[in-house]
Amino acid sequence: MDKQRLIDCHERIQPYIHNTPVLTSRLLNEMTEAQLYFKCENFQRMGAFKMRGAANAIMQLTDEQKQGGVVTHSSGNFAQALSLSAQSLGVKAYIVMPSSAPLVKKQAVKGYGGILIECEPNLTAREATSQEIVQEHGATFIHPSNDDQVILGQGTACKELLEAYPDLDYLFTPVGGGGLIAGTALAAHFFGANCKVIGGEPFEVDDAYRSLKSGKIETNTSTNTLADGLKTQLGDRNFPIIQKHVDEIVRVTEEDIVAAMRLIWERLKIVCEPSSAVALAAVFKKQEKLSNQKVGIIISGGNVDLSSLPF
Amino acid sequence: MDKQRLIDCHERIQPYIHNTPVLTSRLLNEMTEAQLYFKCENFQRMGAFKMRGAANAIMQLTDEQKQGGVVTHSSGNFAQALSLSAQSLGVKAYIVMPSSAPLVKKQAVKGYGGILIECEPNLTAREATSQEIVQEHGATFIHPSNDDQVILGQGTACKELLEAYPDLDYLFTPVGGGGLIAGTALAAHFFGANCKVIGGEPFEVDDAYRSLKSGKIETNTSTNTLADGLKTQLGDRNFPIIQKHVDEIVRVTEEDIVAAMRLIWERLKIVCEPSSAVALAAVFKKQEKLSNQKVGIIISGGNVDLSSLPF
Repeated sequence: MDKQRLIDCHERIQPYIHNTPVLTSRLLNEMTEAQLYFKCENFQRMGAFKMRGAANAIMQLTDEQKQGGVVTHSSGNFAQALSLSAQSLGVKAYIVMPSSAPLVKKQAVKGYGGILIECEPNLTAREATSQEIVQEHGATFIHPSNDDQVILGQGTACKELLEAYPDLDYLFTPVGGGGLIAGTALAAHFFGANCKVIGGEPFEVDDAYRSLKSGKIETNTSTNTLADGLKTQLGDRNFPIIQKHVDEIVRVTEEDIVAAMRLIWERLKIVCEPSSAVALAAVFKKQEKLSNQKVGIIISGGNVDLSSLPF
Repeated sequence: MDKQRLIDCHERIQPYIHNTPVLTSRLLNEMTEAQLYFKCENFQRMGAFKMRGAANAIMQLTDEQKQGGVVTHSSGNFAQALSLSAQSLGVKAYIVMPSSAPLVKKQAVKGYGGILIECEPNLTAREATSQEIVQEHGATFIHPSNDDQVILGQGTACKELLEAYPDLDYLFTPVGGGGLIAGTALAAHFFGANCKVIGGEPFEVDDAYRSLKSGKIETNTSTNTLADGLKTQLGDRNFPIIQKHVDEIVRVTEEDIVAAMRLIWERLKIVCEPSSAVALAAVFKKQEKLSNQKVGIIISGGNVDLSSLPF
């Protein structure tokens, strides 16, 4: 991956995404003794950064591939992102989702024009069902995080943030499937001035932390975290980028996540997902290192169920 | 009040306030069949539009008056607004608050440098205590809503919105003490192109609705509403402006308020107070009239207790 590919990607997807606003808070700066810049991807179309990677992946298909549509398995933000991107680009999107997924997520996909395909709630069924759609419709499978085009797309959020604040010392993101942090690390490498990238990850799903230690992709045996966007694991496309360009993965407790989420809601007056709060929670963990530093934080998304908030 | 006074006021307070962002939502536009422009005063300093009026009122004092400080009685956003404005301008602010007020509100005032004076939780005690401070310290009493300088200051939010979107057909605000809607009505009159102003008010505290009907200031016998910022009543300074320049007051139920608040949180991804949601709830009530119209909505504030949300 070189710099020009990220520049081209950003130019390509620009008509389909928002250049989201950056918020600051005097109080949060005082608390951390740093200067924090929150890149608000909760204000992105469909409510999360995933829109960027999904749009880029579809736009890179050939006309023939576009005719067959795209397919993914996700019950999270990528399902909505692929649906809305496909709709915007006049392409069919098949979304494989476990039948047990919340009704609100199924409705969101349909609302964005996605074709919902339900399957048994296990990985084997999801993969088999996706394969059937590839066979039957000639659809192209697009992975939510382990795909070069998706990784490049996710990196454009950091590129925009560095265009607005070129001298950031650090960039913090949450770590789930690895697409966001890999794209961010590439963007920080290409466009930052010695900007270090740090990932925040819940102790409960610390596969990325362990993967960096062991040098191979580790998995989670349980996924008992509020940060429902971070239950996925790294893949062979994003892991090498993370190994090369990410400074550190910092683990946080569930209590850290709730406290950081509350601060974001109360002080920035924005609605974010628990997964987004993991990045700010990691900032507090590294506070000693960050004194008087300029720190970018990606608020990854804002799709949260208001009926089951942790406070 | 003439146009020039509002222009001068805006110029004066500019260093002490944010020109807050305006948000839009494709889905909310589709739902209402109108074009909605949300002026986000929840992102204002201290989290509400009240900062504008408080800053203007203090800045209009003589140097001698400033030396004596300012005093108000409020347990809501004006207490914080006067404290922060006074701190920014190097003036003392005495805030009279009932001893029964929530600890978080007392702490917020102290956090912004206000001098907290507790009193018995009734109107007589609040007024007597305020008068004592006027006598003792030579402080100037500033009313949260029934004050020409406060009214002018509150009008600057609408002025900014019309500078960004000059051809708004309607402007909706919540109605509490009347400062915001009176200032908004003046700004719409001076700077709008036939922009009509409509207030939203809970049925439970419909004093403004009844006042416009009867032609005199009415009071509420009970204040059983979620919209805790709207429990106050109109005053002799703002009522004549409202009579002259406000098109209509629309009443909404508590259910309407919760539904509108939920839409704002879920769709705009912002944290707002129940009082702010009253304006959007009123838009839904008037939906028939608003088809294809450009409608400004003032999101009045974002200071809300996350531990007691209505959903």
